[in-house]
Amino acid sequence: MNVVLSRDSQVRVMESTVTNAEKYFGQFCSLLASYTRKTARLRDKADQLVKQLIDFANTENPELRAAMRDFAEDLAKVQDYRQAEVERLEAKVVSPLKLYGAQIKQARADIKKYKRVQNNEIKQLEKLEKLRQKSPSDRQMINQAETSAQRASVDTSRTTHHLAETVDTFQEQKLKDLRRIFSDFVTIEMVFHAKAVEVYSSAFQTLENYDLERDLQDFRAKMHGICGHGSAQPLSDTSSPSVPWALSSQSAQSPLGNTRKEEEGSEGDSVEESPLEDLRGQQQGRCD
Amino acid sequence: MNVVLSRDSQVRVMESTVTNAEKYFGQFCSLLASYTRKTARLRDKADQLVKQLIDFANTENPELRAAMRDFAEDLAKVQDYRQAEVERLEAKVVSPLKLYGAQIKQARADIKKYKRVQNNEIKQLEKLEKLRQKSPSDRQMINQAETSAQRASVDTSRTTHHLAETVDTFQEQKLKDLRRIFSDFVTIEMVFHAKAVEVYSSAFQTLENYDLERDLQDFRAKMHGICGHGSAQPLSDTSSPSVPWALSSQSAQSPLGNTRKEEEGSEGDSVEESPLEDLRGQQQGRCD
Repeated sequence: MNVVLSRDSQVRVMESTVTNAEKYFGQFCSLLASYTRKTARLRDKADQLVKQLIDFANTENPELRAAMRDFAEDLAKVQDYRQAEVERLEAKVVSPLKLYGAQIKQARADIKKYKRVQNNEIKQLEKLEKLRQKSPSDRQMINQAETSAQRASVDTSRTTHHLAETVDTFQEQKLKDLRRIFSDFVTIEMVFHAKAVEVYSSAFQTLENYDLERDLQDFRAKMHGICGHGSAQPLSDTSSPSVPWALSSQSAQSPLGNTRKEEEGSEGDSVEESPLEDLRGQQQGRCD
Repeated sequence: MNVVLSRDSQVRVMESTVTNAEKYFGQFCSLLASYTRKTARLRDKADQLVKQLIDFANTENPELRAAMRDFAEDLAKVQDYRQAEVERLEAKVVSPLKLYGAQIKQARADIKKYKRVQNNEIKQLEKLEKLRQKSPSDRQMINQAETSAQRASVDTSRTTHHLAETVDTFQEQKLKDLRRIFSDFVTIEMVFHAKAVEVYSSAFQTLENYDLERDLQDFRAKMHGICGHGSAQPLSDTSSPSVPWALSSQSAQSPLGNTRKEEEGSEGDSVEESPLEDLRGQQQGRCD
């Protein structure tokens, strides 16, 4: 019976390996799927900000309009990179983790088969033992039972060997997948963050270069121009505008070079805010 | 009446300046508040992943355990930087936009006051006109009405001047705030992304350095060790383990050096997933 016990321990290790993998890979999968969805929602929110920035830019004087539009374009670029991040996380992290379920099922089936075969061996051994005690003289029956027990034992051996191979392959695949999936996760995140740094550096320059004084002069000229020789006093510090006001009516409506398709953002992330979030928004994020 | 008309145009520009600011700053505020909350939720999700990675690490062999724990620590570090991002966005972007409402109220009040004063002037002028038509000979009444109209006109002039100053200050402040708030936004984002690149580079090295072969040898030794001289065949390619198995039972429970306080993550973002999200999760993110 020592052999059976040692086999049992081995099967327990195999079972716990598979159970652990099932538990943690399942959790990694749902957490990373949720992480990906939340990233997509952050992208949607920033996209809305881009739209508002462009609308706002179109109501402003040329200097601010140009600065806001450039800034909005940079912000849109970051969202394009975030979209690429979302797609790559889906393809290289979440999908492989989903597919992992099939391998776990195979290992589970092999363990189940082994247990069936092993139970049969135990049954045959018990039958043989009973026969030996009850009818120790019935050689024919005992020989038959011995043959059955031997056959069952060979079956168990073969299945154990097959199971050991399966679990070995499973473990190797698991370790390789784990390293690959998390390396891919890190690479995808790293590429996104690096691109974001690059684009935000340019956005920072845009805002630094924005000529606020010139914009203010435009505004004062507009106010002054309307008053003409009216009663309102010209405001102090109003030099003549160097940019003709007519410029401000140029259409600035050309859409951003955002090539992202509508559907790509759809995957449930562009759904309206949940009522719960609206409520939280009212509690913390009130903007009045 | 030409003066009144020109003043009207001026007031219309002022009104549209204030109305525009109210509309867009309000939208920037709520969008950026929502962006900040969504960032906090991304942090929460990644924190959950960190916890699972550590739990998982503790069930694995020494090599993988060390690699997973280092990786989890790096992932936790990124979340600490994300937390700093959230706090700084709250303090330097969302809060100033919220406070902006007070300035808009002041400008609105000034415009309202101007309109009241201007209406009074128009009333006085109409009264004077009527008197001149009805009783052109009543010099006393006409003189009195002329004085009232003149006083009202002086009032309007003064108020117009004050209003022009208010709107000039408002516009200047608006442009400065806009540049500062968005520059702060870009800086905060840039710092976060740069830190993330740094930490993920280290995480990538951790995963690259993970010795998968050694880990697999540990696993095989464990299986083999349990079987002992039992019937299961030793698996091919099983060299003797270079790390004693006992090592694997070392406690790896020491918490991460994550100094973030619980409350900091509270602001409604650590709230359970909304039912809507769960539903979406079932549709797209199924991990079975």
